[in-house]
This record gives sequence, C-alpha cells and structure tokens, in this order.
Amino acid sequence: MVIEHVQPEIDGGYFPIKRIIGEKVKVTADIFADGHDQIRAALLFRKQGKEKWQFSPMSFVGNDRWSGEFTVEEIGIYEYTIEGWVDHLMTWLKDIQKRFQAQEKIKVDILSGIPLLERLTQQITLKGEKYISQLISRLKEEEHPEKLMAILQDKLLIVIIEENPLKNHKTRYPKELKVIVDRKKALFSAWYELFPRSCSPEINQQGTFLDCEKILPDIANLGFDILYFPPIHPIGMTHRKGKNNAITTQKGDPGSPWAIGDETGGHMAIHPQLGSLNDLHRLIKKAKEYGIEIALDLAFQCSRDHPYIKTHPEWFRWRADGTIQYAENPPKKYEDIVPFDFETGHWQELWQELKKITLYWVEQGIKIFRVDNPHTKPFLFWEWLIGQVKEKYPEVIFLSESFTRPKVMYRLAKIGFTQSYNYFTWRNTKYELTEYLNELTNTGVREYFRPNFWPNTPDILSEYLQLGGQSAFFIRFILAATLSSNYGIYGPPYERFINQAVSGKEEYLNSEKYEIKQWENKDIKESTRDFISRINQIRRENPALQMTNNLKFYHVDNDNLLYFGKFSEDLSDIILIVINLDPHYIQSGWVQVPLSEMGIKPDQPFLAQDLLGGDQYIWQGEYNYVELNPNILPAHILKIKKKLKKETDFDYFI
Amino acid sequence: MVIEHVQPEIDGGYFPIKRIIGEKVKVTADIFADGHDQIRAALLFRKQGKEKWQFSPMSFVGNDRWSGEFTVEEIGIYEYTIEGWVDHLMTWLKDIQKRFQAQEKIKVDILSGIPLLERLTQQITLKGEKYISQLISRLKEEEHPEKLMAILQDKLLIVIIEENPLKNHKTRYPKELKVIVDRKKALFSAWYELFPRSCSPEINQQGTFLDCEKILPDIANLGFDILYFPPIHPIGMTHRKGKNNAITTQKGDPGSPWAIGDETGGHMAIHPQLGSLNDLHRLIKKAKEYGIEIALDLAFQCSRDHPYIKTHPEWFRWRADGTIQYAENPPKKYEDIVPFDFETGHWQELWQELKKITLYWVEQGIKIFRVDNPHTKPFLFWEWLIGQVKEKYPEVIFLSESFTRPKVMYRLAKIGFTQSYNYFTWRNTKYELTEYLNELTNTGVREYFRPNFWPNTPDILSEYLQLGGQSAFFIRFILAATLSSNYGIYGPPYERFINQAVSGKEEYLNSEKYEIKQWENKDIKESTRDFISRINQIRRENPALQMTNNLKFYHVDNDNLLYFGKFSEDLSDIILIVINLDPHYIQSGWVQVPLSEMGIKPDQPFLAQDLLGGDQYIWQGEYNYVELNPNILPAHILKIKKKLKKETDFDYFI
Repeated sequence: MVIEHVQPEIDGGYFPIKRIIGEKVKVTADIFADGHDQIRAALLFRKQGKEKWQFSPMSFVGNDRWSGEFTVEEIGIYEYTIEGWVDHLMTWLKDIQKRFQAQEKIKVDILSGIPLLERLTQQITLKGEKYISQLISRLKEEEHPEKLMAILQDKLLIVIIEENPLKNHKTRYPKELKVIVDRKKALFSAWYELFPRSCSPEINQQGTFLDCEKILPDIANLGFDILYFPPIHPIGMTHRKGKNNAITTQKGDPGSPWAIGDETGGHMAIHPQLGSLNDLHRLIKKAKEYGIEIALDLAFQCSRDHPYIKTHPEWFRWRADGTIQYAENPPKKYEDIVPFDFETGHWQELWQELKKITLYWVEQGIKIFRVDNPHTKPFLFWEWLIGQVKEKYPEVIFLSESFTRPKVMYRLAKIGFTQSYNYFTWRNTKYELTEYLNELTNTGVREYFRPNFWPNTPDILSEYLQLGGQSAFFIRFILAATLSSNYGIYGPPYERFINQAVSGKEEYLNSEKYEIKQWENKDIKESTRDFISRINQIRRENPALQMTNNLKFYHVDNDNLLYFGKFSEDLSDIILIVINLDPHYIQSGWVQVPLSEMGIKPDQPFLAQDLLGGDQYIWQGEYNYVELNPNILPAHILKIKKKLKKETDFDYFI
Repeated sequence: MVIEHVQPEIDGGYFPIKRIIGEKVKVTADIFADGHDQIRAALLFRKQGKEKWQFSPMSFVGNDRWSGEFTVEEIGIYEYTIEGWVDHLMTWLKDIQKRFQAQEKIKVDILSGIPLLERLTQQITLKGEKYISQLISRLKEEEHPEKLMAILQDKLLIVIIEENPLKNHKTRYPKELKVIVDRKKALFSAWYELFPRSCSPEINQQGTFLDCEKILPDIANLGFDILYFPPIHPIGMTHRKGKNNAITTQKGDPGSPWAIGDETGGHMAIHPQLGSLNDLHRLIKKAKEYGIEIALDLAFQCSRDHPYIKTHPEWFRWRADGTIQYAENPPKKYEDIVPFDFETGHWQELWQELKKITLYWVEQGIKIFRVDNPHTKPFLFWEWLIGQVKEKYPEVIFLSESFTRPKVMYRLAKIGFTQSYNYFTWRNTKYELTEYLNELTNTGVREYFRPNFWPNTPDILSEYLQLGGQSAFFIRFILAATLSSNYGIYGPPYERFINQAVSGKEEYLNSEKYEIKQWENKDIKESTRDFISRINQIRRENPALQMTNNLKFYHVDNDNLLYFGKFSEDLSDIILIVINLDPHYIQSGWVQVPLSEMGIKPDQPFLAQDLLGGDQYIWQGEYNYVELNPNILPAHILKIKKKLKKETDFDYFI
C-alpha cells in the first residue's frame, strides 16, 4: 500500500496546520496498491494526549485520490494520519459479480472466498457470526448461479463487511500530522488600535485607563471586538525622541511607547500616568461587558533606561568603546531603543525572563498580543515561547507584526503566530489584490497563515490613503473587512480621514508615536461611524464573511472593479461583493454571476440584496449590471436570495 | 538558519532523483535567518560511500532563494545536501560600508569587528595569518575614515574571507538527498523491437539468433542502438493460444512468447528453436560491433507447463477445486499464463529466484531489460530487485512496461525503473501532447520519470495509426523521436505501415504475438528507411535532441501544428521543430521564434536549416511562415544558425 502526497501537510509535516474550533479538516491523499485488489482507507484523528484514534472513512475521488474529513471540537492540538488496507472480501465479491455478468461459472470462485468469510466471523458479534455462518452453509449447498448471486447480494452482508473491514496489508501513513485549534477570534476579529495616552477628553491632559473606559461604548457601537494598545509601560528619557522623530526633545514630549522602561520599571510595569494595574483590570472587565477584548503589545526591546541594562548587561551588545549598541538598520537609527542580544551566552535566562513577562500579562487577563517586529528575533525563540504559553493557555492569540520578506513572514506563521500582518497595506490595484489574495487563500499558505488586513497603522499611512481623499478610506476599509475575516484599523486618525504624511514618506506627519493627541469627537462624521458600524454588523450577521479562505474572484469587465464571492460551505449564506477601486470616478460593468456554483438555474430570477446600501435588485442570468459612485458608496455587498416569491406563493392562488 | 523547500527533492527525500553521467544537478532552496545578518550557503555532494563532502558555493537568486550545482561524474549513487551559515565578518564589512556612505564615524565600529578578524587568522595559512595581522594593526592605528575604508576594501582580504568562511550558526539541511546516476543510454536511446522467431529469410521457417545476426546491418543503418526481443524462453503447450488469441491452437501454432516455460526449462532457458546460449553470446558480441545492445524481456509469469509449478507449487495460487489460478482481470482471461503469488508465505524464496534469473541474464551480457507489466507485482519487490541488481551492476537499465494509472506508473519510476512506457501512444492532438509533455517535463515528474515514447507495440496499434494512412506513421515517428530522447518502435510492422486492427480494438489483426511472420524486405520503401535513418542521424548529431526535459512549446497560430524547441544548455545547439499533426491536409501558420531566448536581436537575420528536408530559410524577426504537406514531409527540424555571412565577411571587403 502506498499513501502519499497527503494534503494538508506543511513542509513534510514539520509544522501544524491551523483551524478554529468547529472547523472541518478535509484531508486528501494518493492511496493505491499494486495489482487490481480493492482498497479502502480511513482518516485517523485524536486530540493530542489521547491514546485512542477516532476513525473517519475516506472515499475515493478519482485518479487514486482519496478524501476524508473530521471536525475539531476543542481548542488545543489535534493529530491526524491515514490508514489504508487491501479488502480481499470486497475484491472477491466484485470479482464474482464480474464473472456472473460475463455468464461464467461462479461456484468454484465462491468457494475460494469462504475462508475470507470465516475470517470475518472471528471479528464480529455473536449475532453477526451466526448470520454469516448460515450464509456460508447456504453458499456451500446452493449450485444455481442466480441463487448464489442472490445470497451474496444480501444487504446485511454488505453492511457487516463495510463495518468490520478485514484489513490486509494494513498500512499507516508514517507521520502524525498536527492541527493547532484556536478559538473563533483567531479567524474572525475586528481590531481597533489607539494610544490610551490620547484618550483624555481634557485638552493638554494625558489620557488614562479610566478615560479609556469612557470610550468603550463608542468602540462597541462601531462593532470592533478587539481594542489594541501600543506598549503601556514606562518610557525611557535618555535619547528620547521628540515630535516627528526628532533626535532632541522639547519639554513635555512623552516619547515613543516602544522605548520601554525607565528606572521605575520595565516590561511588567505600567506607565504611571496611564493608571494602576487595578485600573487595567477594571478596564479589561468593563471592556468584556461591551464584548471587547483588550490586546497589548509585546515589544521585546528596551529604552536606554530600562532596569535590565543595569541588572543584566550581559543581555545586550556593547561596542568597542564601551557604549551600548542601540537599534539600527544602517543607515536608519533608533537611538532611543536598545535591542536584546539573542545570541548572548546567557540566552537561556533572557528567554525565561521574556516568557515570564508574557505569562505575567496573560495572568492579568490579556489573551491577545500584537508582537512587535518578531522577524528581528530568532525563530526558535518564538517557536519555544508561543509553544510554552499555548501549552498552558491555548486561547492566547499572537499577531505577528512583520512586514519583512515573504518567506520570513510565512515562517513566523508556521512556527506559531496565530495571525499575521501582511502586504495588503500596499496592494491597491485589481491585479495586485487578486494575485496576492490568491497566494494567501489558494496555495499551501492558507493552511497556516491567517492574514490580518490593516489599511493603516501608526507606522504606515499608505500613498493610496494620502492621495485618494475620503473615498480612499472607505474603499480600503471595505476591502480589509470583507476580503479578510481578520482586519484592523489604527482608528482615531482613520475615522477622521487624516492623510497628511511626512513628505515623500508613508509616515504620519506629527505622528502620535511621538506626541499625545486630543482626538475630538466632533471631527468624526456621523456617516463615517454609521458606515463602519454597518460593515461590522454585516460581518457579524453573515458567516460567509467570518472566514478568509472561502474567497473566490469572479469576472467583471472593468479593471477598476474588484468582484469576488464568499459562500458558507452549506450555501446558506452567499455573498457577492463588488468594490470600486477608483476613489475618483464612477465605474460600472457587467458582473458574471457564478450561477451553477450558487445552485441557480439560468432561467431563475433571484434577489441580490445590497446589505450596505439597502437596495435590492432582481437579477436573472449570468451577466448583470453594476455601477458604483465612490463619492456615495464605493461598494455593493450583495446577499443572494435564491427564492423569489411566485404566483404560487400568493395567498389566493389555490 | 532556515533551509527549506529544497529542489529537487522527491517525496521528502524518500526517493532519489535521476541523472546520467556528466549531467548537472542544479539545486535550489529557501535559505534565510531572522534579522539582517549576511548569510551564505554551500551545496555539499559526494559519491555514496565516500565520507568527505565536496563543497560548491550557492549564490543568491532573489526572494530568499539560493542556487548551486554540481556535476555527477560516475555512474552509481550520489548524495547531496546544503549547509548555510551566518557570516558575521561580511555583515560587519557591509555595515561599515553603509555607515561610511552615510558619513558616520566608523572607527569604533571597525574596532568592534577586529575580534572577528582575529578569529579568521586562526583558520588560515601562516602567510594569510601574517597578512591579516598586519591589516589589524593598520586598522588599529589609522584614524582617518577614508584611509580606514581603503584598508578594508583590500581585495586580498575579500578573497581570504570568501575562501575561509567564518561559519556562525552553521546549519546543515537534515536530509541527505540521493541521485541515481546512469549511463548515457538511460536518457538517449532508440529501441527497435522484433520477434527473433520471425527473422528467418526462408518461408515457413522459424527464425533463429543466427538469422538475427544477418539483419544487424539493417538495424544499424536505420540508426537504432537497442534491439529488444520479447521473451526468448520455451513456450508452454497447455492452453497455448492460437492465431488471433484463439483459445484452441492449430498444429504448428507457436504460442505467445509471454507464456514462459515448458518441461525443458523456464526463465533461464532459451527456446530450442531460437538457438543456443552460445548463439546468443555471439549475437550480443556481433551486435556490439554494430553499436547495438540486445535488450531482453523480464516477464515474471509462467506457462502452465513451467517447471516451477511442479517444483514450487507454493509460489502459485490454487482454487477451491484444486486447479491453478491462471491470469485474469475479469472478464479478461489469459488461460495460457499463470501469475506468481507474490503474497505467498514463501515470498522470500520466490524473490531470490527472480533475482537469480535477472542476474543470470546480466551475467550473459544483457544490460537492458524491458519489464513486463511491473504494476501487477509489489512495489517493494521491484525496489528490492532493482536495488540489488544495480548495486552490483549500476549500468543495468530497466524499462517499465506499465500503462496503468498515472500515480502507479510514477511510483514504479520512483522506486527504480530507469525508463518508462507512458501515455504518448494515445496523445495525438496539440492540446493533449502539450498538456502531457508539460506534465512530464515541467513538473516534479521530470526528476525521476524518464519517458520512452512508443508509437506502437505488439499490444497496441493506435487508432491514429489505423486511420491516418502512411503519413500518420511518419508523424508519430517524428513526434516520438524528437519530443523524447528515448523512443522505440515495434519495427517490422511499423516500417511496412501495417495498420489492420482487430475490429473495434487497438490490437493488431493476425498479431505476431501468436504466429511467426515472414517480414519481406521488399515491402519496405527505400524512402521510409531513409526517413528513419535520417531522423536517428539528426538525433545523434544534435545534443539538444539527446535530452527530454529541455523541451519548450512555442506559439504557432494553427492548432494542427505542434511547435517546440530544444536547446543545449550552452545554446550551441538550437533546434526548433514544427510538426503537422494532420495526416491528411497541408497546414500552415506563423511560428513565433523565441528570439531573446536564443540570443538573437529582432533586426538580425538568421538561418533556419531544415535538417530533415534539407532546405534552408533566411528568417528575421519574431514571426515566420511555415507550410507542411503531410504527404511530402510532415515536419521541419530546424537548426538555427545565428550568424549569417555579411559584407564584412567577404574576402575583398577590406
């Protein structure tokens, strides 16, 4: 027996695939043997730690390919593998059938199979054993071919054979493949990022966790379920950055939150002006009441005033002149930040300390982390850290903030990150979006890399947003929230259409990274809030939008229109989305509706209900017209209803 | 360090790739590390059995992909793997360079790197050590940035660093991948199949090995280098098949050569009417003088009169009525043939006997075998048998005669078969040929499956040959001999355009499998022999046609024309081939010449010399016209000559 080319299997089974609770794992493989014997196969699966496998029968697809599936019911780790075997009983039965059809004698061949039936009686119930024994006697006595055939076609016999397979040449696929099963939020989440220090309603006042509590209702109304804070720790003074990344500070400049630590504390301390640990606990609890989880930043680096520099100088790099090596990627410099030296001889103590930090925050109630620049630290460290944390707290979610080369981004996902930043931020045209989304959702990447789409971050104000006016913000928002089931925005400037950048760069002018902002509610248009809130509601109400890999692009005869579908597996939720990528002009075109995929006949009218704009269209046939004005609403989110009322539905028809 | 997605690697490295002696093995892999350090990598290779690896540097391609290559110089088995490491010295040098360009101070950073240079001195020659030590002193003394930079840009320093890599985080790819290296004939061969018993020049006379000697000059003139005989052993009498597969025989019916063995002997005996073992030795020797190798058939099955049935009844399957199980695939029956029972409890003795048979013929001088129906025997058996034989005789070639499902065919190639029959026989249209050849030459299959293209065999007279007249025979011949570097014909009926089949089947009418033929030389047209001989000569003279995986299809605006190119790696041999697939009508079209691949500029005229027809065309630019009459010559085999004589080449130009 050969079992090979098992899918999914990442890098020869070295890495696990990812699923959320309740999802199916569909497994396919080439399974075959030499010769003409009938073969069968089963998918074996179990929660890690359990000894006993559960069996799920696999079925033949074609070209020696077999398919089976199982559902993951609990978070944690599952294992799966495949077993195949030759079924001599089935081979014998089919063989007799062929001979009978060819009008050959079958008695001798039937007798040849009786030892197989006798073997069967040894592994079934007493009742079954009796039944088969009787059947054997009848086969021995009977001579008439038609009557012999009738005995063999006995339905109960087939059932008994199916349920009690006689496994010859039983072969187990040598690898036990793994599935990381996460909670639902790993695949379906809407992030809102803000700097808590900018949350004060008072002018010239540093915001606090208590201030954050007051804006929870707004975040909840908008429909977000994760509120993510940049680092909340004390900020170093030495080489602190001023406004717009200036090398010198003015009095009162608060510094970048990523320059972590001063003499009062480091990664386990809270910036004194934000409030106390108690305030944070209160905020976490309050947020929960609004259906919101607080996410924190894991930024494993220090300001020059971090206590570690004195207590653990061996964790850092020192230059020939005795000064500490600060962060840089020549010629770029981050004078306010000192990286850990992961190659230090004392790496074990360092790793343990970073694990302690992570577990500390988990134990404070933080179960979601956005991880800063993971690609500048060793892969092995992350593999170990995430493994250690999830072993105890499998519900923890790690979002990889890595915009580096593709292979490195994918590797970080393979070694354990739950969600990942990615290149969506720079994919604007139809060609770019289609190519990239196909890479993410139609290749092996889909099994382990869960993208999280961010139109902006405190580090990135893309050129598209800089140049496209307010429509650009709406377009990028819909793209993020519908193409990907995980998405997020750096909220306050996004809602206010802030698009002023440092000249020639994709960096915010007067970036909040270096100064405290007063975000005025009066600067947000009601229509913007309605729009965001509506999109999030549509996502919540439609299961098809709660996954990413069900994405499929369809044809529309206009390259400024992006047109795609997302269907729930049972087709109970069918969503077609058309987005005008051009922020300036009305664009129109004929969309090709995938009727047969949707189970709709060409002559059957159906309803396309625009969940976003509220309009409803009666469509029929393959080609239908759309027209989108970016200054009104740049997209249709069409829910397809197959059944339109007919005369037979009318009360008085009968 | 991460080293992953190594190519070529078959099924996680479980199976070897295949090459012939003198071929290159090009290996690529994703190689990267976290962070921004400079990395380097080398390809390691060795002949199996040697302890020491040879190193070949790998170079960066892009997107974290690296590439390297080595040449296999001897037949047998080679191993290869990859080593990557972080190069701190190179990282340091590049870093200083960036700082210098950004006009930063560099002295302190230079001093930080001196320990690395000191480490370098410990692993180089005394002379090099002295040189580097002096350089270190100069770096310590010098203060002026430009002068410091000049010291570092010293060319000898770079050479020493390149040649004596300081390997940090040295990582070895955990698998040692294997290459089976065969002799050249494994990739480049022209087979001619005939039944030696039909070789007699006398009417109604069984041919002998001595008769075969007499036709060697003809086979050599045609240009074939392998002469393959169906089984040459005694043929059973019991249930012997008559003409056209009749269940009963007429007196004198010779039986199918695949029903091996009678009371005088089995697989190690020679059919008495063919001659003696001495005659065979003589034939092998004589053939060698003509540049021809004799190939035999390995058909591991017996007639009902084979001595094994008495001496080893335990090697066969017996039915409930005490009769032996003959070969069948219900409802098809091969009453004259009895298969071995590879599942017998005595399989070890059976396997040893079959190995003995194989080695017996190898020791008689037979180094090429066509293996009958290998897919009806266990994969493990073949893997073992071929491994055992090639361990002692790595020059032996096994051709798999398996027309079964694709996955099974590919598996047989993976487990060791040198060449393989395949579906070429049924691929006729441009779409079919393009799809299939792309599967064979542009996917992972190319690494282990060496196709051998047969337009016909004693078992298959394809419908295309039945229906297309003589042109069909020319077309299929050119396709086989140019698309694939290995090809063969079942010669006597092919040269004579025999196209009469059993009605509704692809079986020869009056098949030579069941009767002795007298093939008259007068039935062969001189033009046919010239054509075959010309094609084989073109193959011998053009290295581009001596491999298969260099195949590339190009565009021509006519679906009846198949148009492809084969280039030698150094572009010294560029062949473009256009074949009219329509055996009935003249077809014409504009072929798109891949100028840039060939290194020809659009304004540069070039010569396309038709090696087949003899005409020469001066072409220029991308599109050129062709017209092919199947009744004259259905193909162009164009050798491209880039340089056309110009006025400057004229004797009196100066």
